[in-house]
Amino acid sequence: MDNDKKGLLFVISGPSGVGKGTICKKLLERRKELKLSVSVTTRAPRPGEIEGVNYFFRSEEQFQDMIARDEFLEYMCVFGKNHYGTPKAYVAEQRAQGNDVILEIDVNGALNVKKRCPDAVMIFIAPPSMETLKKRLVGRGTETEEAVERRFAEAVKELAAAGEYDYIVVNDSLDKAVKDTESILVSERLHVSNNPKLINILKGE
Amino acid sequence: MDNDKKGLLFVISGPSGVGKGTICKKLLERRKELKLSVSVTTRAPRPGEIEGVNYFFRSEEQFQDMIARDEFLEYMCVFGKNHYGTPKAYVAEQRAQGNDVILEIDVNGALNVKKRCPDAVMIFIAPPSMETLKKRLVGRGTETEEAVERRFAEAVKELAAAGEYDYIVVNDSLDKAVKDTESILVSERLHVSNNPKLINILKGE
Repeated sequence: MDNDKKGLLFVISGPSGVGKGTICKKLLERRKELKLSVSVTTRAPRPGEIEGVNYFFRSEEQFQDMIARDEFLEYMCVFGKNHYGTPKAYVAEQRAQGNDVILEIDVNGALNVKKRCPDAVMIFIAPPSMETLKKRLVGRGTETEEAVERRFAEAVKELAAAGEYDYIVVNDSLDKAVKDTESILVSERLHVSNNPKLINILKGE
Repeated sequence: MDNDKKGLLFVISGPSGVGKGTICKKLLERRKELKLSVSVTTRAPRPGEIEGVNYFFRSEEQFQDMIARDEFLEYMCVFGKNHYGTPKAYVAEQRAQGNDVILEIDVNGALNVKKRCPDAVMIFIAPPSMETLKKRLVGRGTETEEAVERRFAEAVKELAAAGEYDYIVVNDSLDKAVKDTESILVSERLHVSNNPKLINILKGE
């Protein structure tokens, strides 16, 4: 009586500075069977970045073609800037092979994914407090005070969207936040709705 | 930004011989904050059994009074046999104090609890195979072949009810089954619907 093998999509999201990237990295280390969704970008590869691992690198024209062919789960396309998008095909292929996929993404992108993919499991990473979030944004030390303020104001708006997710993980201690998120991944796999074959076997069908 | 503190009710159920009692015992050892729902019974206390810990011991008349006053979440009352019931008050008090409660119960009882308490989290423990279940029933060595056959036939019927639960845990390895069940307990606490206060704080309300 093995579990069914259709992969799930876990969307891991939250405001900038909340630590969602680190949580995803730790999850991928702990659960080797998890796949990270690879984004498409129009920016040039940086030294060491590998096509299909870090990103799928595409030209502006190729990116616009993908939009026209409805090949994105979500995308962000601002004139004069680098574009980023989540290709449907990669996620769909991994899930069809029975692999669970995690997608680390900002709040706007996550809410767009939810519209296109209603069975995505939506996980919101929240800061333990506004003060901590601000400290983390300042602590990066890579941005001007004005940029930090702008990011913080954006984060306050993004926190208000937490209620549209399925789960909320407060990133107070990184280790606990990783374990909490891992529990969500494990328990969703155990949900009756994700085990139709097993249920049918038990029914004797 | 602490979690809200209304306790959850976890119903842990499955056929006889599936190991649900052992799983509950391990969970209570691992998570000291969990409370085990204490049943009411009309049978006499055995040596060492403590009122309010193992059972609430009540007379036949007291049991019937509790039924009349609608004080049970579920009960099993067979003429000429000892009766067993799950009192509403104990579960309600623990939950009001913010304690999560686990209730280990057979399949019929569990389905009755679900009717009375629709927000209960329903966890079905399944055997890895029918053969394993039969071996476990035989292995108890306390029953006649006929009694084992009867229990096995009952188990086959009970397995068909798995689809009415929220989660299904296959008890192949005890350690994994305990961890899987624990993941469900953790992740349900993280569900957005169980954190209304936190969501309101994040909305700035």
